[in-house]
Amino acid sequence: MKNKLYHGAAYYPELWDKSVIDEDIKYMKKAGINVIRMGEFAWAKMEPVEGQIDVSFFVDIIKKFYAHGIDTIMCTPTPTPPIWMSYGHPERMYVEKDGTVMSHGARQHICTNNSYFRERARIITEKISKVLGNLPGLIAWQLDNEFKCHVGECMCETCKQLWHKWLEERYGTIENLNELWGTQIWSESYLSFDQVPQPLPTPFLHNASLTTMYQIFSREKIAEFAEEQAAIIRKYSKVPITHNSCLGFRVDNECLFKNLDFAGVDGYPHSDEYQNFIVKFDRFRNVKKGRDFWVLETSTSHTGALTRVGKTHKKGYLAVEAVAAYALGAKGFCYWLFRQQRTGCEISHGSLISTWGKPTIGYAEVLEVEKTRKEIEPIFIKTKTVQAEFAITYSDRAKVFLTTENHKNLDYRSIMTDFNTDVLELGIHRDLINENEKLEGYKVLFTPFMPYVSEEYLQCAKKFAEQGGIWIIGPLTGGRTKEHTVHTNAALGNIEKIAGVETLYTYHIEGTGSRGKAFGISAELGLWSAVFKPIEAKVMGVIEGGPSHGQAFITEHQLGKGKIVMLGSMPMGENGRKMIKNVLDHYAKEAKIILRLDVSKGTIAVPRKGKDNLLWVIINMDGEGGKVILPTEGIDVLTNETLLAGVLEIGKYEYRLIQQK
Amino acid sequence: MKNKLYHGAAYYPELWDKSVIDEDIKYMKKAGINVIRMGEFAWAKMEPVEGQIDVSFFVDIIKKFYAHGIDTIMCTPTPTPPIWMSYGHPERMYVEKDGTVMSHGARQHICTNNSYFRERARIITEKISKVLGNLPGLIAWQLDNEFKCHVGECMCETCKQLWHKWLEERYGTIENLNELWGTQIWSESYLSFDQVPQPLPTPFLHNASLTTMYQIFSREKIAEFAEEQAAIIRKYSKVPITHNSCLGFRVDNECLFKNLDFAGVDGYPHSDEYQNFIVKFDRFRNVKKGRDFWVLETSTSHTGALTRVGKTHKKGYLAVEAVAAYALGAKGFCYWLFRQQRTGCEISHGSLISTWGKPTIGYAEVLEVEKTRKEIEPIFIKTKTVQAEFAITYSDRAKVFLTTENHKNLDYRSIMTDFNTDVLELGIHRDLINENEKLEGYKVLFTPFMPYVSEEYLQCAKKFAEQGGIWIIGPLTGGRTKEHTVHTNAALGNIEKIAGVETLYTYHIEGTGSRGKAFGISAELGLWSAVFKPIEAKVMGVIEGGPSHGQAFITEHQLGKGKIVMLGSMPMGENGRKMIKNVLDHYAKEAKIILRLDVSKGTIAVPRKGKDNLLWVIINMDGEGGKVILPTEGIDVLTNETLLAGVLEIGKYEYRLIQQK
Amino acid sequence: MKNKLYHGAAYYPELWDKSVIDEDIKYMKKAGINVIRMGEFAWAKMEPVEGQIDVSFFVDIIKKFYAHGIDTIMCTPTPTPPIWMSYGHPERMYVEKDGTVMSHGARQHICTNNSYFRERARIITEKISKVLGNLPGLIAWQLDNEFKCHVGECMCETCKQLWHKWLEERYGTIENLNELWGTQIWSESYLSFDQVPQPLPTPFLHNASLTTMYQIFSREKIAEFAEEQAAIIRKYSKVPITHNSCLGFRVDNECLFKNLDFAGVDGYPHSDEYQNFIVKFDRFRNVKKGRDFWVLETSTSHTGALTRVGKTHKKGYLAVEAVAAYALGAKGFCYWLFRQQRTGCEISHGSLISTWGKPTIGYAEVLEVEKTRKEIEPIFIKTKTVQAEFAITYSDRAKVFLTTENHKNLDYRSIMTDFNTDVLELGIHRDLINENEKLEGYKVLFTPFMPYVSEEYLQCAKKFAEQGGIWIIGPLTGGRTKEHTVHTNAALGNIEKIAGVETLYTYHIEGTGSRGKAFGISAELGLWSAVFKPIEAKVMGVIEGGPSHGQAFITEHQLGKGKIVMLGSMPMGENGRKMIKNVLDHYAKEAKIILRLDVSKGTIAVPRKGKDNLLWVIINMDGEGGKVILPTEGIDVLTNETLLAGVLEIGKYEYRLIQQK
Repeated sequence: MKNKLYHGAAYYPELWDKSVIDEDIKYMKKAGINVIRMGEFAWAKMEPVEGQIDVSFFVDIIKKFYAHGIDTIMCTPTPTPPIWMSYGHPERMYVEKDGTVMSHGARQHICTNNSYFRERARIITEKISKVLGNLPGLIAWQLDNEFKCHVGECMCETCKQLWHKWLEERYGTIENLNELWGTQIWSESYLSFDQVPQPLPTPFLHNASLTTMYQIFSREKIAEFAEEQAAIIRKYSKVPITHNSCLGFRVDNECLFKNLDFAGVDGYPHSDEYQNFIVKFDRFRNVKKGRDFWVLETSTSHTGALTRVGKTHKKGYLAVEAVAAYALGAKGFCYWLFRQQRTGCEISHGSLISTWGKPTIGYAEVLEVEKTRKEIEPIFIKTKTVQAEFAITYSDRAKVFLTTENHKNLDYRSIMTDFNTDVLELGIHRDLINENEKLEGYKVLFTPFMPYVSEEYLQCAKKFAEQGGIWIIGPLTGGRTKEHTVHTNAALGNIEKIAGVETLYTYHIEGTGSRGKAFGISAELGLWSAVFKPIEAKVMGVIEGGPSHGQAFITEHQLGKGKIVMLGSMPMGENGRKMIKNVLDHYAKEAKIILRLDVSKGTIAVPRKGKDNLLWVIINMDGEGGKVILPTEGIDVLTNETLLAGVLEIGKYEYRLIQQK
Repeated sequence: MKNKLYHGAAYYPELWDKSVIDEDIKYMKKAGINVIRMGEFAWAKMEPVEGQIDVSFFVDIIKKFYAHGIDTIMCTPTPTPPIWMSYGHPERMYVEKDGTVMSHGARQHICTNNSYFRERARIITEKISKVLGNLPGLIAWQLDNEFKCHVGECMCETCKQLWHKWLEERYGTIENLNELWGTQIWSESYLSFDQVPQPLPTPFLHNASLTTMYQIFSREKIAEFAEEQAAIIRKYSKVPITHNSCLGFRVDNECLFKNLDFAGVDGYPHSDEYQNFIVKFDRFRNVKKGRDFWVLETSTSHTGALTRVGKTHKKGYLAVEAVAAYALGAKGFCYWLFRQQRTGCEISHGSLISTWGKPTIGYAEVLEVEKTRKEIEPIFIKTKTVQAEFAITYSDRAKVFLTTENHKNLDYRSIMTDFNTDVLELGIHRDLINENEKLEGYKVLFTPFMPYVSEEYLQCAKKFAEQGGIWIIGPLTGGRTKEHTVHTNAALGNIEKIAGVETLYTYHIEGTGSRGKAFGISAELGLWSAVFKPIEAKVMGVIEGGPSHGQAFITEHQLGKGKIVMLGSMPMGENGRKMIKNVLDHYAKEAKIILRLDVSKGTIAVPRKGKDNLLWVIINMDGEGGKVILPTEGIDVLTNETLLAGVLEIGKYEYRLIQQK
Repeated sequence: MKNKLYHGAAYYPELWDKSVIDEDIKYMKKAGINVIRMGEFAWAKMEPVEGQIDVSFFVDIIKKFYAHGIDTIMCTPTPTPPIWMSYGHPERMYVEKDGTVMSHGARQHICTNNSYFRERARIITEKISKVLGNLPGLIAWQLDNEFKCHVGECMCETCKQLWHKWLEERYGTIENLNELWGTQIWSESYLSFDQVPQPLPTPFLHNASLTTMYQIFSREKIAEFAEEQAAIIRKYSKVPITHNSCLGFRVDNECLFKNLDFAGVDGYPHSDEYQNFIVKFDRFRNVKKGRDFWVLETSTSHTGALTRVGKTHKKGYLAVEAVAAYALGAKGFCYWLFRQQRTGCEISHGSLISTWGKPTIGYAEVLEVEKTRKEIEPIFIKTKTVQAEFAITYSDRAKVFLTTENHKNLDYRSIMTDFNTDVLELGIHRDLINENEKLEGYKVLFTPFMPYVSEEYLQCAKKFAEQGGIWIIGPLTGGRTKEHTVHTNAALGNIEKIAGVETLYTYHIEGTGSRGKAFGISAELGLWSAVFKPIEAKVMGVIEGGPSHGQAFITEHQLGKGKIVMLGSMPMGENGRKMIKNVLDHYAKEAKIILRLDVSKGTIAVPRKGKDNLLWVIINMDGEGGKVILPTEGIDVLTNETLLAGVLEIGKYEYRLIQQK
């Protein structure tokens, strides 16, 4: 890939005539589209009849686009297996949790673990890698499309057998599994791995361990499929490999991207919910830390499917969405899709060009993006994203635990988005890091809602604190073991000693009239909570009212040069949000975090690093305008204007590129 | 049938002893019941054991009733196939969309496409036609009962095979289907018709074309069953054939009644929602245009089933319900049911006589109906319903399209009811016409929410406009092709040229801050919308705010002697309703519609035509009283009172029959 | 069992090491736990491999506990059949109403009617009875655990065959069934019992008789299983047998406990809903009238499962919950569970000791219970619960009828709880009696929401009235026959004559503007109602407005020395509650009920009988404090203080034991 900002769109040349494609290329050039993504749904075009593979059509397309200065990201076509693979083969189909066998239709209808599917997937992947892998203009590969966006854990017979094998590899003996899962409870004990059920319908809930492990099994298996595809491609092609993932799909992104080359993300939040976009950038920049990620899909205007149509963006938003993406580490910013679908189930989805060949409501917005892109490109390619000082662990394994044990419909993704937004609104630059990420360079580590804290994580974070970092633990962190059981040595296992506390009780504090008082504010406490007795720690937050009146829910403990902060309960409501912000702000200040600017709500500040200076990208995201307080004099690198320290007004959907002196 | 107003009730003689029947006949005569409907659930009585058919019981009953001056509508008993047909034959049962195979029980549990069911249905139909077809007192046949009231599209194996055959007949070659449905998308392409799935569960949505076509297939098949039954009956009997349909069942009434003799409708709205009744009269009067329809079922008081009980009508309502029905074209007004069920699942449903043989809460209301009927009969049999000048197309095909593509739970029936109520409240007489109806005699044609406008419809309506009519198109009309795909020549296909506009964009306008300003009012705009650039047309409504600020959403275009009016977006909320009324009122006035009276809300005005005069039936439907402004002097034909032009007060649930001079 | 108050907990020794058990015993002794319940989920421990039974572990445990002064209630382990019984045997599994076959996992996954399950259940029950049945310290048996708490009516093949047999035994001939169920309706008629379907999915509702009878069949079958188990145990053991039931499970408690020795109940209402606990005591004290019942499960603090966590009790509540239970007839008060689960799906449920071996948030509350228990024990063992004068029939058969015919989601349990709470708040002692209970000693009998009134019940209650009792009938009582059909002689069958009324109409009165006026108050009327014409009765409540304006909805009729009161409609809303209280208060006064005290809301008064005096236990249940008016002087038996007649203040969660002079 070149050192430039890519501006792209998904394209489906297999659906259109040559004349339409030629027309589209003209529009692409007008709109500054310099890369297209294609092929992900084209298996039937490539192999209309089993074994009759011909991908020359795509060779021609890639060449044609290249001739027009447009690069290509090519996809493996595995999300939509053709009818010849599913017809007459119910045993190949994905099976729902309630036992429903999927019919042919839509996408992801075949189980990705099915051996025949895998065989055909290998063959088609090998073929397209071989034929297209070294074409000029091919800059990257995308595997499949949005793994597990429509489906979760399959219950087919193949999966059952793989599950048993996986369990055997994980646990060695059935006795070991029985002991670790505590299956003596409810007489669940198994005599052999073959007997361990998939989490199919039962009169009440399955054992937590079983439910959690089946999800982890499923996530590992889809990552294996990705690895298998990547390995085939690498035999024939040198360009990097990615996937278009998201926060909402039933995958473990850390695991999925481990052996891929760069991260890709899809994103469709409405302009009113720009925070839901920012959290994706903060997360996917850190899925493959140190490498640029791509926004592989976003809408020019609105989402649309037969049974739901999304709200259309506010005018002027799209350009700042793009600026925010590029500023926060995106190398490419791509739309889904270039030309509105003529058929299928997404015919109402936003695009650049309509089915009848005219610019859409979003097209003018795209022109604004392109104008913007051209303006920022010279500056952005000379600067890089900066590692944050404030890290939050975003763990898809934690999400699995909280799916199994959701207490009362807890939603990990929205909880984490809220935390990220809190930090964003404090003006602090943040990284949403992998569970197994190294902690060098961070000053604060925040670990909320991670029921299972591995010994490796604990040691790594402990060392981080000892060397001067501040580690904030909780709420809902640490109370479960690797196998999704309860600790027998202490409520929070080995965390307590390190944190200098003893957990007196864990219980459901919500609705008991318990309020937390800490950092100058009082808020109702909620969710499953841990109440602390300080052993070596200092009490920082006290519970008032309720069954544990007077006890601690926030403590801090000096450890080496740093600190361990325990947050045992979830502050609720508006005051709760304020308390969380106060806590994070307090420790950010104590940790002397400098990558922060004082911004008004709705406006964000993104730092980028040049050769020997810091560039702040200030963007109004909410269309209401806002302001930022510049701590020192700076230069607007687009206008060369000198900006004095102090308040700087930011217009509606305005962005400024300010080099700090 | 005689030239009279029928007053009837459903009756189940197979459930009661002779003595009860004799008692009931006495009550019928007291209450003026002059026709009964029976037989629809009596298959087990007629053929208790497979092949042992004996319908003499019903011969005797018909004769007995006839002897008492009571006519009969006889039904084919096919909605409740006996246990001997279903026992041990899961392959004959109806299959739900989720794959659930129906058990024996309730009604409609066997698939009407099953060949064995059809064979037995033919035999029993032939038998009863032969034996009962020419009995004195038999005035009509009803086929089956409420086709598809409990079920929708069956997914059984028989249906699958018929589906493939239907597709082959419709599309000829699989290549043609692939092209028209655009199945290259998502690699759906089929190699043979056999491979085209039924719309069974998939991880995401099926292709729009497939979903829509399966519904149309199902609607055609049930109509075929009706035709088959009708053809058998006609071999043996001369009396006309109908069916008791409704707006909510999963049938296409235009298609279903095509080969039947007159329309029948069931209706159970509560007295507070009388509008939901009026819309049925306006629609079913036009399903078989020019022929009287029947209200085959309504409740004397309230609906009732084990798990839901309806509200009881207000006192005094039932008589005006009957007057409205008769005035709007009903030849018969029948209750479901005469005697409360002793057993089953509808034991709490309103009736005339209770299970224990006493008058019910509704009985006194029925006596009022009969009093009223006697009063109006001499006048009504000398007058006829009048074709309206204002036509609204009510298309069950449009409903199918909007079921497949419901955007955000759009409900065609309630939308159309609202439009009809708008026109009703303007005091304008209206026809809810078939999609393929001729347009002679109309002055305004309104075509809302009809995604697919056929070329025939378009040409017919165009001609209508050229000859002086005003055609109002939209919202949500015209944007889809026959195959439920998107046009490739223009957003609304061939409509645009005729309307003198170009559609700039189609998009989801709701929630974007866009307001429409037109006809003296401003309202928020909603739903999937088309934004126009006038080519030859005049802008009549402009969008303010949002992404298409300043563009047109209402245009009008002179075409020949008439006009094409485009309504591109849905005005929302209370102001939206007012705007719609303003639009319709404006063009009704411009079209010089004269079949209208200025009535207050809750009071309706129904025109009927005598030999050389116009009779206005004014009815207070809401029990609150109201008024009407008489444009000229008139005579109350019941009292011979002369009524001056000007305001006439109408009492609570009062009706007046006023002959206009 | 000894004459003492038991204080117990569920315990799972099979899940823990000896050292943990030893530690737990220490805590038990500290907390005054004098009985444990165990074994209900331990089948796999007892019989890990099919046929290899060894229960010596439990012998040792019982002996060990006995040595520490702790008695045992031993359970049969049948709610959790081991994997060797279900693996590879889908035909043994429970089948949902929608046809879903349960997978292995959770509890109650195997159908209790399956013959192989029953064989294995007999074997294991015989074995444990033989080996453990005469151990010292074993004070009772509990059968299984919470029959039908997770499941309802099974639809498996075994159940189908038993259903047909049950029908044949009940109805003799299929013709009889057809006649009684009225299956001629909708052509349902069956030619043989084999053909009668289970209530599996159908397009609409099944016949009421079928739906009701399948539920009754299922309830009889689970009671048969209980009897079978009890009979085996009795061969080897002399200690009494119980079961831990509830109001919410799909059983008929009257039927289930018929052949058991004493009643047991589980209860988890939150402290804010203490009324939901009182109703259980009032009911289960009367399931086996004259015998103490046990609270076999309650939480020390809160409930908890993976996907839902209950609110934690208010501080101080648990002790008064225990006092109320003991006062109202509980011999034992037991927690679920002693030690928090380490694994499974209830890891967040409240307990006494945490998984990591420390006292929980509830532990201090348990210490309060024990302090209280010690205080009241000497007094309670010398007093007994008193039969109330006010009886309300609580019929699980009525509940079945109202499940089949729920009108609009009527919930029998919550309706009956409301009525019980009304009487409770009037300060009147009440019995919630079995349908077939004798009526000696009662002064008022209230029979609400009992659609089917058997001839035996009618005669018994009639005699009760003739001898001086007041029988209040309705709402919704009497309108259905034994077979869940409608009467043909009168709306309410034979009740009407006895009550001196004729029912004019039954209909759905709600929403019709009908208000009832009676006993000094006016309230909106609701639900399915009966409107009366007094024949010999006196009108006590009149309907105003609506379709039956001016008619009676409450009547009373002198019958011998007593009265029959008809309550034909349900008074709704706040005023409705007041009217119901006024009615009940009026007749309680008329009947000269003396077992009542004037208490403020939130405080309850429970009478107990000593040798020759009456002890009133006054308890503040809502934690807000309250008062009671003592009618005469009394003595506080705990303090020997003399209390004057008049107002006595009761502190927050305070209780007083007052001997009336």
